[in-house]
Amino acid sequence: MKLIDGKQIAREIVEELTAKVAQIDGPKPCIAFIRVGEDPASVSYVRSKNQTADKIGIRPLLFTFDDTITQDELYAKIDELNADTSVNGILIQSPLPPQLDEQSAFNRIDPIKDVDGFHVVNAGRVVHEDANGFVSCTPAGIIEICRREGIRLEGKHVVVLGRSLIVGKTFSLLAMQKGPHANATVTVCHSRTQNLKELTRQADVLVAAIGKPEMVTGDMVKEGAVVIDVGINRVEDASKKKGYKLVGDVNFGEVSPLASKITPVPGGVGPMTVALLMKNTVKAYELQNA
Amino acid sequence: MKLIDGKQIAREIVEELTAKVAQIDGPKPCIAFIRVGEDPASVSYVRSKNQTADKIGIRPLLFTFDDTITQDELYAKIDELNADTSVNGILIQSPLPPQLDEQSAFNRIDPIKDVDGFHVVNAGRVVHEDANGFVSCTPAGIIEICRREGIRLEGKHVVVLGRSLIVGKTFSLLAMQKGPHANATVTVCHSRTQNLKELTRQADVLVAAIGKPEMVTGDMVKEGAVVIDVGINRVEDASKKKGYKLVGDVNFGEVSPLASKITPVPGGVGPMTVALLMKNTVKAYELQNA
Repeated sequence: MKLIDGKQIAREIVEELTAKVAQIDGPKPCIAFIRVGEDPASVSYVRSKNQTADKIGIRPLLFTFDDTITQDELYAKIDELNADTSVNGILIQSPLPPQLDEQSAFNRIDPIKDVDGFHVVNAGRVVHEDANGFVSCTPAGIIEICRREGIRLEGKHVVVLGRSLIVGKTFSLLAMQKGPHANATVTVCHSRTQNLKELTRQADVLVAAIGKPEMVTGDMVKEGAVVIDVGINRVEDASKKKGYKLVGDVNFGEVSPLASKITPVPGGVGPMTVALLMKNTVKAYELQNA
Repeated sequence: MKLIDGKQIAREIVEELTAKVAQIDGPKPCIAFIRVGEDPASVSYVRSKNQTADKIGIRPLLFTFDDTITQDELYAKIDELNADTSVNGILIQSPLPPQLDEQSAFNRIDPIKDVDGFHVVNAGRVVHEDANGFVSCTPAGIIEICRREGIRLEGKHVVVLGRSLIVGKTFSLLAMQKGPHANATVTVCHSRTQNLKELTRQADVLVAAIGKPEMVTGDMVKEGAVVIDVGINRVEDASKKKGYKLVGDVNFGEVSPLASKITPVPGGVGPMTVALLMKNTVKAYELQNA
């Protein structure tokens, strides 16, 4: 079994981007973050993205709003950032407060600045296999892991647990695309799947993105499979200072002895997400300056 | 084995639409066809769509162009039809001559008039499970067959052969959606799939859309499976006046005794496509007049 070190891969991407951005003459790429309210997780995510941007040489802008903001006030800021040619990427930190329509806000972003890949046009571009689109960061991060770890998907049976827009469904579309880091046979399983174990045991590459702590047990995995664990679940743990620990969707103790390669939680897929957001931002800069 | 009569289902849809359109006061729904060149198959397809529209009471408009038309000339017509509020649906008959970029032409259509469902925004709406989008007619027709034939997809293993935009990939997205006529576990196989027979034999519902005459043989199908054959292939047949016959992707002689239900070729999925185009046109009218 080989542990896939997501932190290290993310570091490599950040270094490559730093070198690339250093070569840019004139104004550097710029990403604008919109955060509504003071949800501690959102504050922390945006801070982390902001720091990584800074490190790479991408100029971060932060716009914060009170959680009583209206949809029109949010639109006004998005429109302003769409029109500002010095801004290359726009990220609206999810979740938004309940009075706001999140998908409509994502769809208000100019697709060429939609570095989170949540705009309906960018979802369509994934379907159309249009390389000028933006792919949301977690599924793009899994493809990047496969590429850098030499995990070939071509002709392999990739089984995806979960059909969410931001992970499972989008990753399944990427894996079934034509191309050197795709061409997989793909099975998508979810809460309604009847014969789950029978299907997961066929996986050459198993991607778990279903949000159930440690639900993938040893008897569900074929020996030699590659296991990508996208889950980040809090479970109570009195021995920890915070009172909880983070576990994935995979029972690591049972599955890791069977897997040829496996991502840990934390430190696997998680760190890739911010790295891919930065990669998308540099791509946005390039597309806008082509 | 029960033969699924696609012609009869298509007739029912046409009758339902005819009744619905008859109830509309004032101007009836209107579909505009754009045909470039005189390819005999395109001429025949457009004529058939035109006739069905007429029969339902949908007003058909036909615009034909010489095959030397430029992209800008094509855009000018699309823009004119987009702006014309009396036109509800726009269909550009594929294929276009080689000097024209087909996908760009589809993307020029106002998404709310894109009754063929080929616009990138409508591809995205399928991913987003947005019911206000337009689904391309063949995959939508397969869902309609399942609905009207009482073929439940929920929790079933649907195996799709082929990952084309206009059939396989889009149908797989529909089958994995949340909802009463979806919720399937979906496997997408294609030319690079290694253990094809092993996978197809697991299918509760097998959809063949790979464009290879009679490639699905009896040993690839589980007894009791529902088999949907989307292929329309010409194979030489000296006994026919035209010198060829039409066959599907399924070896009907071998597979039909095993299947619980099966679509024939011709007369299965084929007739559904025009019916669903008309359904999309009436939907476009409704969305534009809501």
